[in-house]
Amino acid sequence: MSNNIFMLIDLLGTAAFAISGVFAAMEKKLDLFGVYVIAFITAIGGGTIRDVLIGDFPVAWMRTGYYPVTIFIGASVALFFHKLRNYQKVLLLFDSIGLGFFTVLGIRKGIALDFSMGLCIALGTITACFGGLIRDVLLNQIPQILHKEIYATACIAGGILFFTLQKISLPPVALDGICILAIVTVRLIAVKYNWSLPGIYPTNKKE
Amino acid sequence: MSNNIFMLIDLLGTAAFAISGVFAAMEKKLDLFGVYVIAFITAIGGGTIRDVLIGDFPVAWMRTGYYPVTIFIGASVALFFHKLRNYQKVLLLFDSIGLGFFTVLGIRKGIALDFSMGLCIALGTITACFGGLIRDVLLNQIPQILHKEIYATACIAGGILFFTLQKISLPPVALDGICILAIVTVRLIAVKYNWSLPGIYPTNKKE
Amino acid sequence: MSNNIFMLIDLLGTAAFAISGVFAAMEKKLDLFGVYVIAFITAIGGGTIRDVLIGDFPVAWMRTGYYPVTIFIGASVALFFHKLRNYQKVLLLFDSIGLGFFTVLGIRKGIALDFSMGLCIALGTITACFGGLIRDVLLNQIPQILHKEIYATACIAGGILFFTLQKISLPPVALDGICILAIVTVRLIAVKYNWSLPGIYPTNKKE
Repeated sequence: MSNNIFMLIDLLGTAAFAISGVFAAMEKKLDLFGVYVIAFITAIGGGTIRDVLIGDFPVAWMRTGYYPVTIFIGASVALFFHKLRNYQKVLLLFDSIGLGFFTVLGIRKGIALDFSMGLCIALGTITACFGGLIRDVLLNQIPQILHKEIYATACIAGGILFFTLQKISLPPVALDGICILAIVTVRLIAVKYNWSLPGIYPTNKKE
Repeated sequence: MSNNIFMLIDLLGTAAFAISGVFAAMEKKLDLFGVYVIAFITAIGGGTIRDVLIGDFPVAWMRTGYYPVTIFIGASVALFFHKLRNYQKVLLLFDSIGLGFFTVLGIRKGIALDFSMGLCIALGTITACFGGLIRDVLLNQIPQILHKEIYATACIAGGILFFTLQKISLPPVALDGICILAIVTVRLIAVKYNWSLPGIYPTNKKE
Repeated sequence: MSNNIFMLIDLLGTAAFAISGVFAAMEKKLDLFGVYVIAFITAIGGGTIRDVLIGDFPVAWMRTGYYPVTIFIGASVALFFHKLRNYQKVLLLFDSIGLGFFTVLGIRKGIALDFSMGLCIALGTITACFGGLIRDVLLNQIPQILHKEIYATACIAGGILFFTLQKISLPPVALDGICILAIVTVRLIAVKYNWSLPGIYPTNKKE
């Protein structure tokens, strides 16, 4: 059962990132194939880099047919609804959901490998953020994660929450659910209220 | 014998992509070393990503001295002829040839690993397209594969042809040859007649 | 003891590149988290790609807690001193020092794997240059290594010197020290006197 939930989390995160990839690609007016490629890479990029770093081959998306199918369906639905007026908000929503799911997934993978807490949180953050990072590199823009509001910071906060809550021995489903919710919430609130990290540049020098 | 042909295909594709890398790098006025680096990365990038994804180490170009030598000779010849009037056409030709060779190479590697048909075609497409994708990322432009005419689509079509023809048990050389030719032809015709995938944007909104 | 020196070289190079990453990221006005991420990726990027190519998992920075700590301290010191008037010069200095250390480190890793001289020098150059290359890709600019003065060329020259001196059986520490010094010196002199590789474009065509 635990395995099923693990997989469900993975597929939901995958679909969410595929959808976010479609919206980002369409902003750059890519062609149909390009949109699917970006959806695919956004969805599997983080997990692929995680698996490559820890040496788990072949990487996750090659091991089962679920990923391509999930991505294809998610991306196709997104393409169908692309005329939505405020797709910026939809992009944000799905990106945040993917962020939450993938952070927890990466942390669980690190725990399964007996990694230290710090490394587990790093793996979670990489799983969650590097798909979007590759997406932005391919779309020829500085990755959002590097200069936008609270983003990876939400993953790290969620990771610390995970290891804090773990001590009170919640059932895994509750633990995962709370952390995912916390990450999504932090991210959405950060965007809504325009939170950002403390500035490090003199304000008058900022262009 | 089959092994020799395998290697010949690999070296021809490698030289073709090295040459395409030189022309792309010279358009951006890179220095001599930069031109060779781009030639090298364009030539070995797709195969390297393929080997990393499936966990085949050390990656292909580190296993034999043939690659560096082939790339060096190919790139040097290209540098010598760079004053050709219409090098855009030469770039296209060699890029297409590389595309055909590497698609078949990737498919054959997938078959050797007992991968599913879909995964084999994905491996072929990655082998063929990701060298050019990394080349474009390094040259700070949105990868051609994502927004230009029929490109990866030609690889996928060639891959489907491969598995269709495989059923009538052609000799491997003929099978490989026909698919390579098909991919190169589709790609060249697509560029000549400006084929592209069906549009997904309202035409009046397109810049 | 040899192992200790090996590690010292590694940590000094890591700190130097982390510092160079901070200065590069601050030029692009990234936020606090982005600055640390770029510092981290600049510092571990080259070694990570090297380990992935040769199949050494988990990659170096995941095996010990020294790297994150070193990078954090190096980056924090750099952040503190970022108001230095001429940080361009500081960036150059630390980038050059990192270059020297990491080239020798990569060469020694290749030797430990019984690789050929050519491959060892390639590994050294990749270890030294690819952190900066990824840094530049993430900051959305054509990597310096591809179009700026003598850069990777200094690594290659240092690598050839290494294998030349190796024949006269110097003690390892002396051998490493001389090569590191040579690489740093060549790089600094190249920048000071604006050395570059022989031009390959007609000068009147150059923008």
